[in-house]
Amino acid sequence: MTTIAFIGLGHMGLPMARNLLNAGFAVRVFDLVASAVHELASAGAHAASSAADAVSGASVVISMLPASQHVESLYLGDGGLLGSMAAGSLILECSTIAPESARKVHQAAANLGLAMLDAPVSGGTAGASAGTLTFMVGGDAAALEQARPILAAMGSNIFHAGADGAGQVAKVCNNQLLAVLMIGTAEAMALGVANGLEPKVLAEIMRQSSGGNWALEKYNPWPGLMPSAPASHEYRGGFMSELMAKDLGLAQQAAQSTGSSTPMGALALQLYRLLLKQGQGKQDFSAIQKLFVE
Amino acid sequence: MTTIAFIGLGHMGLPMARNLLNAGFAVRVFDLVASAVHELASAGAHAASSAADAVSGASVVISMLPASQHVESLYLGDGGLLGSMAAGSLILECSTIAPESARKVHQAAANLGLAMLDAPVSGGTAGASAGTLTFMVGGDAAALEQARPILAAMGSNIFHAGADGAGQVAKVCNNQLLAVLMIGTAEAMALGVANGLEPKVLAEIMRQSSGGNWALEKYNPWPGLMPSAPASHEYRGGFMSELMAKDLGLAQQAAQSTGSSTPMGALALQLYRLLLKQGQGKQDFSAIQKLFVE
Amino acid sequence: MTTIAFIGLGHMGLPMARNLLNAGFAVRVFDLVASAVHELASAGAHAASSAADAVSGASVVISMLPASQHVESLYLGDGGLLGSMAAGSLILECSTIAPESARKVHQAAANLGLAMLDAPVSGGTAGASAGTLTFMVGGDAAALEQARPILAAMGSNIFHAGADGAGQVAKVCNNQLLAVLMIGTAEAMALGVANGLEPKVLAEIMRQSSGGNWALEKYNPWPGLMPSAPASHEYRGGFMSELMAKDLGLAQQAAQSTGSSTPMGALALQLYRLLLKQGQGKQDFSAIQKLFVE
Amino acid sequence: MTTIAFIGLGHMGLPMARNLLNAGFAVRVFDLVASAVHELASAGAHAASSAADAVSGASVVISMLPASQHVESLYLGDGGLLGSMAAGSLILECSTIAPESARKVHQAAANLGLAMLDAPVSGGTAGASAGTLTFMVGGDAAALEQARPILAAMGSNIFHAGADGAGQVAKVCNNQLLAVLMIGTAEAMALGVANGLEPKVLAEIMRQSSGGNWALEKYNPWPGLMPSAPASHEYRGGFMSELMAKDLGLAQQAAQSTGSSTPMGALALQLYRLLLKQGQGKQDFSAIQKLFVE
Repeated sequence: MTTIAFIGLGHMGLPMARNLLNAGFAVRVFDLVASAVHELASAGAHAASSAADAVSGASVVISMLPASQHVESLYLGDGGLLGSMAAGSLILECSTIAPESARKVHQAAANLGLAMLDAPVSGGTAGASAGTLTFMVGGDAAALEQARPILAAMGSNIFHAGADGAGQVAKVCNNQLLAVLMIGTAEAMALGVANGLEPKVLAEIMRQSSGGNWALEKYNPWPGLMPSAPASHEYRGGFMSELMAKDLGLAQQAAQSTGSSTPMGALALQLYRLLLKQGQGKQDFSAIQKLFVE
Repeated sequence: MTTIAFIGLGHMGLPMARNLLNAGFAVRVFDLVASAVHELASAGAHAASSAADAVSGASVVISMLPASQHVESLYLGDGGLLGSMAAGSLILECSTIAPESARKVHQAAANLGLAMLDAPVSGGTAGASAGTLTFMVGGDAAALEQARPILAAMGSNIFHAGADGAGQVAKVCNNQLLAVLMIGTAEAMALGVANGLEPKVLAEIMRQSSGGNWALEKYNPWPGLMPSAPASHEYRGGFMSELMAKDLGLAQQAAQSTGSSTPMGALALQLYRLLLKQGQGKQDFSAIQKLFVE
Repeated sequence: MTTIAFIGLGHMGLPMARNLLNAGFAVRVFDLVASAVHELASAGAHAASSAADAVSGASVVISMLPASQHVESLYLGDGGLLGSMAAGSLILECSTIAPESARKVHQAAANLGLAMLDAPVSGGTAGASAGTLTFMVGGDAAALEQARPILAAMGSNIFHAGADGAGQVAKVCNNQLLAVLMIGTAEAMALGVANGLEPKVLAEIMRQSSGGNWALEKYNPWPGLMPSAPASHEYRGGFMSELMAKDLGLAQQAAQSTGSSTPMGALALQLYRLLLKQGQGKQDFSAIQKLFVE
Repeated sequence: MTTIAFIGLGHMGLPMARNLLNAGFAVRVFDLVASAVHELASAGAHAASSAADAVSGASVVISMLPASQHVESLYLGDGGLLGSMAAGSLILECSTIAPESARKVHQAAANLGLAMLDAPVSGGTAGASAGTLTFMVGGDAAALEQARPILAAMGSNIFHAGADGAGQVAKVCNNQLLAVLMIGTAEAMALGVANGLEPKVLAEIMRQSSGGNWALEKYNPWPGLMPSAPASHEYRGGFMSELMAKDLGLAQQAAQSTGSSTPMGALALQLYRLLLKQGQGKQDFSAIQKLFVE
């Protein structure tokens, strides 16, 4: 039976690890927050005392951490995990980080003969709990085939985006586009309502017309139109605005590295920062609607 | 049999009038361009010598004109059509114009006891030819029921957006959102490709993820990904950039009237104007992709 | 002695009319607000009972009104002032309005043999009181020479911007640029301070460097740096944000008429609308600083 | 006599080093481009064979390099210059780099007991040749007093911006503001001219009004208005657009580190990238005017 080390048990990592346990994998877990470790231990995981302890005896390492610096710090440098992993191990790095950080770890892993995939997710905490995440995977196709049963225990869509780092690139491109269409939808809703339209009617017309997009289908930012959307629950839950701002920052970092012009993406980041300044960082990212109504 | 006056036989009006003829309506047509009138006359229409001649004996008047001033000039003022229309007539004003212009005509028509609907369309010349246009209708529900068989001869989706002018509001909101998501898609494609992704792979990942939108479904702006899209035919055909700029201008005019803030919509207009300055006004609006690649 | 009719006695018009009285002109005043009329009457003006009464016997008419529609309504149409003005009269239209509205009045006046100048001002209520306004004048050079002694009683800078409407064009260009540099200054201040700089030091460095501009010289948006600036008085007084939003709207209207791309100007308008949505419309326009600090 | 090591002899470094020679300092120079070294050697400098050779015997080290990575690479890590500098030495780091990179070098230098100032410049190649650069200095006030005679040989304005890294922060804030006001000026010029104004008249009105700024004073982007400005010489010379894009990127990096919202600064970066995509990267940054005229 495959033994998996899982490092980083936050809002996303904890339910992901639980799904691995449910699927019958042996899982060794570690997080700086002891309560998360204990919660999984009572569900059958091995509670490791450190990241290094977690990887001991594991053939697969999964990490789910907040940002590039945590990932680089976990794997690289003196005392980094790479040095203590067994030959033939596989790393599934699921955090959303800068493509260049992912490539650094890829390179260092390759130098030691370790396989690695960057495999950031979308789908939020709901998808993590339900095991319906989308994985956008960068790295070797053979490694992806090896990882597929493990990813399938946590998600329902697995895309091979390309070579090392491509998963991260796909993720930031998708999330930049998501931010743009969410803001565009929020602006159109506010404009139409200010000009006398019923929000429900306008939303339905645009959804069925050329303005159709994911926000109108699944996640309308106008309160009360979709019972399950965060907008109908005072923008609680979902994907926090501060995390969207983080992803938009990664997109701008990628754009900087290639000199790409992304006027809409750059503006989206600035608008989310305005929202954060108003104290809405913990609210769902569809709360950008609030900027446009009185 | 209902006799319809059809005024304005351009790229959209001509195939719309032809579909009315095909559906068995008596149609009296007028346009300043004689060749368009002749073409429809040989298909069975009555070639009117003026707008006033066209409405003579007609119980329904359809107009499809370039801009607000043409519509106001057609119907209002001394010698405007309203004065010569029979009591009980119905006006279907299908041009894309400012909501406030539409409301002016509504008001003047109501003062004379004439019914009117503002009924702008989406679907482009292809939808006009195929009779699959979408109508976004503003005005009285009873008038819409009266108009429905006529609209059904030209389109396949008929939305009642609300009261007088609401059709125009829905149209500009939808098209502003369309411009935003088209530019957002073009930026994301260029960013991903510059960072090493295959365009086909990236487009498919975003289409199935939270970046999904009409452009990725039907009208990808990256050349070669969708055989039927204008992007795969050197951006010929489709919906011209200069018309998108016109609609974005109408959206800003609506935003001005209500003091609505639409940062993305305003930026979209400016970017289309940059594209027009580069001589691309006659190209399909997905040619905005060109701004973001070298 | 020249007799001047002065119509529109708001925050700007009232002190302007007072300066004309102080300079020895005979002034006939009218406003819908009776108290303003009485205040000037006690300073020696003739209190007219209507706009038509004001112009009776006057050879010069000055108007200072809120917006295009008021100006068009005052002069044009049935019962408009143009019909009751004496041959050889001169109109000084000092309101900030759309260039095309100004040109309409110019044309109608010319048809009746009346001279007209569009002469919008800058300098705010302080400049109006002190008689140090700047006039940006559009129209005939000979008419400007005739008007010069009158303008000189109210302002200290008189620019001949060009032909009919040119004064309004110069005004909206200048104010769009002013908004852009004010926001640019506010952003730079907030960015520098967030990164550890003393606001006073940063402002002085930029003022003496290539970032130097009118806001840094006269009107710093950071509180406490300039004792006389509105920023140091809780953004009271000065030029209200809602008036800046109005002028930016006129600039976009001018840009629409020529298809000009103004990304910064368009964004400035959207940001001021966000500020207005937050209830800051009556504050000085330098209050845009608040968007960028927590 | 103070001996100065000067590393980095590009368009800026070469004339700066020459001015030090002219002022009587002993200068040891190094650059990877041999011709630059030779040119200064014939003017009296010592031609060093490496950076390490240059600092040998020098009590002051000046560096003028393209970007953060070059500076970090020069000073830090194994074989970095810091290890071979004499106790009591002073570093004047004049490159424009990220504040955090500057702070890294500051920290490492402090750990070794070496004094350092970050001292980026403005004034361009013309200022470098004429010895009229502006220095924005971050670091210890005592070190600045020690450096002042040296800086005074190369520049005419010396600002103490604050603590370690503050010089870089002031530089990126200033240059972001400069970009914003240059684009704002270019937009206003294009808008006014499209609406019928004479460029010379409009520029003069705004220069004397509240739109006044450094671009209108010294560096008008409209061709032909200022004989000495790059705009009047086909945008040759001056400060290249690609360098402005670099500085705007540094500003966004600083904004990212503090979560600052800079909508205008972000848009300025995107517009410069559009200009670069059109092949104008080597032109003066006032060539942004070209985006807005046909």
